[in-house]
Amino acid sequence: MTVVHVLGAAGFAGAQASALLDAHPSLELGQITARADAGRRLRDVAPRYRVEKELTPLDLEAIGRDDMAVVCYPHAEAAAVVSDLADKGVRVVDVSADHRLRDATLYPPVYGFEHPRPDLLGEAVYGLPELYRDRIREARVVANPGCYPEATILSLLPLRDRLTDVVVDAKSGVSGAGRTPSEAVHFSSVTENVSPYKVLRHRHQPEMAQELGTSVAFVPHLMPLDRGLLATCYATLSGPLPTDDELDALYRDFYADHPFVEVVGAPPGMRAVQHTNMAQVFAMSDPAGGRVVAFGVLDNIMKGAAGQAVQNLNLMAGLPETEGLG
Amino acid sequence: MTVVHVLGAAGFAGAQASALLDAHPSLELGQITARADAGRRLRDVAPRYRVEKELTPLDLEAIGRDDMAVVCYPHAEAAAVVSDLADKGVRVVDVSADHRLRDATLYPPVYGFEHPRPDLLGEAVYGLPELYRDRIREARVVANPGCYPEATILSLLPLRDRLTDVVVDAKSGVSGAGRTPSEAVHFSSVTENVSPYKVLRHRHQPEMAQELGTSVAFVPHLMPLDRGLLATCYATLSGPLPTDDELDALYRDFYADHPFVEVVGAPPGMRAVQHTNMAQVFAMSDPAGGRVVAFGVLDNIMKGAAGQAVQNLNLMAGLPETEGLG
Amino acid sequence: MTVVHVLGAAGFAGAQASALLDAHPSLELGQITARADAGRRLRDVAPRYRVEKELTPLDLEAIGRDDMAVVCYPHAEAAAVVSDLADKGVRVVDVSADHRLRDATLYPPVYGFEHPRPDLLGEAVYGLPELYRDRIREARVVANPGCYPEATILSLLPLRDRLTDVVVDAKSGVSGAGRTPSEAVHFSSVTENVSPYKVLRHRHQPEMAQELGTSVAFVPHLMPLDRGLLATCYATLSGPLPTDDELDALYRDFYADHPFVEVVGAPPGMRAVQHTNMAQVFAMSDPAGGRVVAFGVLDNIMKGAAGQAVQNLNLMAGLPETEGLG
Amino acid sequence: MTVVHVLGAAGFAGAQASALLDAHPSLELGQITARADAGRRLRDVAPRYRVEKELTPLDLEAIGRDDMAVVCYPHAEAAAVVSDLADKGVRVVDVSADHRLRDATLYPPVYGFEHPRPDLLGEAVYGLPELYRDRIREARVVANPGCYPEATILSLLPLRDRLTDVVVDAKSGVSGAGRTPSEAVHFSSVTENVSPYKVLRHRHQPEMAQELGTSVAFVPHLMPLDRGLLATCYATLSGPLPTDDELDALYRDFYADHPFVEVVGAPPGMRAVQHTNMAQVFAMSDPAGGRVVAFGVLDNIMKGAAGQAVQNLNLMAGLPETEGLG
Repeated sequence: MTVVHVLGAAGFAGAQASALLDAHPSLELGQITARADAGRRLRDVAPRYRVEKELTPLDLEAIGRDDMAVVCYPHAEAAAVVSDLADKGVRVVDVSADHRLRDATLYPPVYGFEHPRPDLLGEAVYGLPELYRDRIREARVVANPGCYPEATILSLLPLRDRLTDVVVDAKSGVSGAGRTPSEAVHFSSVTENVSPYKVLRHRHQPEMAQELGTSVAFVPHLMPLDRGLLATCYATLSGPLPTDDELDALYRDFYADHPFVEVVGAPPGMRAVQHTNMAQVFAMSDPAGGRVVAFGVLDNIMKGAAGQAVQNLNLMAGLPETEGLG
Repeated sequence: MTVVHVLGAAGFAGAQASALLDAHPSLELGQITARADAGRRLRDVAPRYRVEKELTPLDLEAIGRDDMAVVCYPHAEAAAVVSDLADKGVRVVDVSADHRLRDATLYPPVYGFEHPRPDLLGEAVYGLPELYRDRIREARVVANPGCYPEATILSLLPLRDRLTDVVVDAKSGVSGAGRTPSEAVHFSSVTENVSPYKVLRHRHQPEMAQELGTSVAFVPHLMPLDRGLLATCYATLSGPLPTDDELDALYRDFYADHPFVEVVGAPPGMRAVQHTNMAQVFAMSDPAGGRVVAFGVLDNIMKGAAGQAVQNLNLMAGLPETEGLG
Repeated sequence: MTVVHVLGAAGFAGAQASALLDAHPSLELGQITARADAGRRLRDVAPRYRVEKELTPLDLEAIGRDDMAVVCYPHAEAAAVVSDLADKGVRVVDVSADHRLRDATLYPPVYGFEHPRPDLLGEAVYGLPELYRDRIREARVVANPGCYPEATILSLLPLRDRLTDVVVDAKSGVSGAGRTPSEAVHFSSVTENVSPYKVLRHRHQPEMAQELGTSVAFVPHLMPLDRGLLATCYATLSGPLPTDDELDALYRDFYADHPFVEVVGAPPGMRAVQHTNMAQVFAMSDPAGGRVVAFGVLDNIMKGAAGQAVQNLNLMAGLPETEGLG
Repeated sequence: MTVVHVLGAAGFAGAQASALLDAHPSLELGQITARADAGRRLRDVAPRYRVEKELTPLDLEAIGRDDMAVVCYPHAEAAAVVSDLADKGVRVVDVSADHRLRDATLYPPVYGFEHPRPDLLGEAVYGLPELYRDRIREARVVANPGCYPEATILSLLPLRDRLTDVVVDAKSGVSGAGRTPSEAVHFSSVTENVSPYKVLRHRHQPEMAQELGTSVAFVPHLMPLDRGLLATCYATLSGPLPTDDELDALYRDFYADHPFVEVVGAPPGMRAVQHTNMAQVFAMSDPAGGRVVAFGVLDNIMKGAAGQAVQNLNLMAGLPETEGLG
C-alpha cells in the first residue's frame, strides 16, 4: 500500500486527514508530524479521532520517493517543503495556499511572501476533481482548494462559462480559522454572535476569481458553530436567464458523474453534509433581479480541506475516488 | 402617566415590550394579555425579565381612550383589534405585519387574508422614526417595522434616493421565529447549523421594496443563536459610486440626529447591539463590482420589535425618544 | 441476512438505529415505520443520515418470524407491540422503558400505566452487555437501557457489589428529550442556559437502583448541546476506600474484554465519544470525603440508545458484537 | 462623588466593573488600566459595554487617598498593588484570590506564591455581604469571593452551622476561565461539549471549606455557554433532616433582608439571573439519602465577580447596597 505522510498533523485539517488515512483501506498512514505537539498521541490532541499514532518531528529523509504527502502547514511555510518533496519525486497534496494561485506575482500582495518556485506554481494542478479530475491523476503537486473557494466554485461550476459577476456571501464555522487560540475564536467572542470579517479583502478572493474567470466580491462571515460552510452566491450571467427548471436540469446533468456533489431540491443547510465529504448545491432564478442565486454547502474540514485531500490522493494513486471517504 | 397595554404579552416581542414598559419612568404598564398563558405571572413565562404582573385575557372595555396599546398578535389576527382600538380613539403601535403594507391588494397574496380596513392602511404610519419621526408623533396607528426590513432599511437609508437594486443576505437569530415550538426551532435542528429559508419568498420582501423604492432580492438565513439580526446588503446606485470616505461622511451626516443608529467604522457584528435598542450601520464601496456593500445589525427583539415599539410610543406620547430605552 | 425492522423510525433513536442498520454488513434494514411522517424518506426527516428508504405505517403481518425488531415507541405505547411480536416469535430490542423494570408494580407509579405482560417483564433481559452479555444472546425480549442509567451503571459497574449509596449528577444534551417540539427544547430556551429538572423525581432513577442494587439520588441537568451525556457519580462503598491506582486497575481489569467501554486516565468530556458507540469511564478516590467520584460519558443516541440496540442485535444474531458500529 | 479606579479593566470582570461604575449614579469611574490593551477605548475591547473611556497604564500616583479601587489582576499579581494602595489609605476591593484565604500558609500550595502581607490577610474581610455585611462597610481591603464559592456558599448559607459534609458539582460558562485565549476556551473545543476539570483539585475548594467550615469535595465542569454558574450541592447535616417545607421557610427567612439573593420555588436554571447581580437559591430534602440537595445560580461575571465588587463598594461608601446594580 502506498504510504502517505501528513505534515502538520496537529491542526484541524491535518488531524482529520490523518484520521481518514488511518482508516483508509488502500492507503497507509506514515509520519504524522507536528512541532509543538510532537511526542503526543494524535488522539490526545484531537480526541474526536481515535488515532493512536504519535506525532513526531518531520523526518524528511525517511520519506520514500514512492510515498505521497499531504502538507497542512500554514501558508508561506509550505512552499519550501513542497519544493523539497517534489524535487525528490514525492507526490504532494498541498493543503496550504502556497500553490493555488497560478500567477506568482499575486503571492507578495495577497500572502505576503515571494514565491520561491514559480515553476511549481505553473505545474501544480488546482485540486478540484469536479474541474480537473484527469490532470489531478497525473499531477506531482496538487493545490488543494481553500474552503471558501471550494464551496463557491462548486455552487457555480455549471454556469462558469456564462458568469459576468459574482457576489459571494459566505458563512463559516469557527474551525475554518484553525486551531491556534486567539481572541477571535474564544468561545465568549463567538457564541451568540455573527460577524463579517475581511470584507472584500479576504485571501480566498483571488482564488475564486482565478477559477471562475470573472469578478468576485467576497464577504465572509464567522458563525457560532464548529464545522460547516455555506456560500450564498449572487451571479449575473451573459445570455438569457435560466429558469428554475433549467437550472435544476443543468446542475443535475453537470454533476451526474461527480460522486461528492449532490444537487438538491431546495436551498441546503449545513446539517446534511457535516462530517462527510459531500457538497450540496442548489441554484434558483431571480428573474426580477436578473440573477441566479446559488448555494453551496460543505464541511470545511472535509470537502473543504482534508476530505478533499484524500479524494485527490485517491485519484493520484489510481484508486476509486470515494475510497475511505464513507 | 399614560397607561400602555400590551396585547399578546407572552410572545418574545410582547414580553420584552412589557418589561420595558414595566421599568419605564414615564409610561405605565397596563394590561398584559395572553390566551394560553393567562393566569401566569410574566416572569414565569419569560424568566429573563423580572415582571411580576400577571397575564390576563384581554379586557377591551377596561382600556381607556387616553391609554395607548402595543399589539403583538400574529399577522391576520391583529387587524381586528387594532381596528376596534383605533375606532375607540386609542393610539396603537401594531407590532404585527397587519398595517405595514400601504397597498391593500398585497395582503391576500403575501399574508393570506383580505385586509378589513384599507382606510387604516392608508392612515397608518410606518413606524421607523429615522424616516417618519414627525408623522409618528401624530399617528393614531403606527405600523412597527418587521425586524428584517428594519435592519435592511437602516443600512441603506442614506442612499435611498439613488438605489437601483438591492440584494439582502440576512442572518437572524432563532427568536425571530417566535415562541411557538416547532421542529424548525428545536435546539437539535438549529445548533451547529445554518440554513437559508424562504429564499426570494419571504413576507418581509414587499415591505423592504415599499420603503426602499427599488427591487429587492431577499435571502434570509437562520443562525444558531437566540437574539441578533445582521443584514448584509449589496446595492447598485444611480450616478457615480461613492468612495468609502464619501459613504462614511454621508452616513454620519444622515444619522447625526438619530439616537438609536450608530455609524461604525467597520462591518459590525451582533455583539455590541444585543439587548439594546441600538442599530449599527456601515457601508463600503466595491469599485470592482460597481456596488455598495452595506451592513445593518440590531437586536431583533429590541430595535427590531419591542424596543422600536417603545421608541414609537415615546414619540407618540411627546416624551424624549430615548426614555426607558437605556 | 436477518431482516431488522425499526418501529418508530422518525424519532432520534429510531432514525439513528435505521441508519446503523442501513449500513450494517450483516443485518438488513426492513420496515422503518412512522405515523405522522409516513410517506417521507428518512433522509428528509433526519438529514444527518443519508437513508433513502421511505417511512411507512407499520405492517405487522409482513414481519416474518425469523426477523428481528427494534421498537422505539414512547413508553406505554411499546408494550403492546412488543407483546405481539414476542408472541409471534420475533425477537425484539425494546428501546422504550416498557421492559426495563422487573417489578411490574413500579409501572403505575413511575410510568403511569398498568403493565399488560408481567410475564414478559420477568423474561426480558436488561440490555447492558457489560452485565448480561450471555443472557442477551438468548433473549426473546431485550430491554435497552435508558441513556442516564447506561452512563451511570457503566461508571460504577466494577464497584457494584460494594456500593452503599450513590448520587448521580447528570448532564444531558437536548436530543435526550426526543424530537417532539416543546417550549423546553426551543432553541431560545436552551442556548446559554443550564437547568436542573425532575430533581429526585426522574423516571430513570428506579432503573438505576434496580441494576446497582443500592439507593440512588438522581439529579439530571439539561445542557445547551445536542448529543452527549455525562454522569458524575458520588458513591460510598462498604469496606476500605480504594486508592486512585486501585480504582484504575480494578476498572481496567473489569472492562478488559468489553469492546465499547474505555477506561481513560482522567475525567472524560463528551467530545471523544460523540457519534460513536463508545462509553468512557473514570473513577477517582476522595479520601477526605470517603467516597469515589466516578464519571461515565457516552453519546445518548448511540451507546445510550440506538448504538446499544444494534450492539444487542449483534449479540442476539450471533454476530461479532462490534459489527456495523464503527 | 467618590472616584473608583479599576485596575485590570480589559479582562471580563474588570470590563464589567468599569461598565457598572461608568453608569453608577453615585460613584465615579476613575482610571481603567490595562497593559496590552492600553490606548484602546474599552468599548473596542469589550463591545458589549458602551464605555468610551480609554484604557491606560496604571498611574498609582494619581490615585487619591479618598479614592477607592477595584483590583482585577490575576492571582499572585494583585497582592503587591493592593498592599501599596492599602498603605496609602485607599480602600480596595480585590477581585483576585490574593486576600480570600485567611491562612497565609495556604498560598504556596494552592496559589504557588508566598503571600507578602499576612497582616493584610488577617485584616481583609471576605466580601460576601450576606455573611459579613457590617464588616465590609468598615473594611480597608475586601476580598471579593471566587465565583464558585459565591454560588456554593449562598446555596448553603442558611444551613451553615449544621453542615457535616458537602459535595459541590458545579457547572460554569466559559467566561469564568477569563479572557486569555487558549485551546481550552477555543470555540471548537467547547461547543457541543461538557468537560469536568480540576476535579477535587480546584483552587476554589479551600475558600469554600474556609467559609462553610466543613469538608468540601469540589467537582467543576465547563459548559458550552458564555455566562452563568450553577452549583448543585449535596450536603449532609448534623441533627434531623429538614423537610422541603422547613427548608423553604428557613431559606426565605434567612434571605429576607438580602436584596440580591432570591429564594425560588424550584431548582433554578441560569436564564433568570444572567446579566444581573441576582443569585437564586433553592434547597430540597432527600430523605432516602439523608441529605439536602441545594442549588445556587448566578452570573459569574456579575454576582460572581464585578457586580459583587460594586455591591461591596456601595457598602464601603455608605451607599444603598443596590445602587447602580439594576
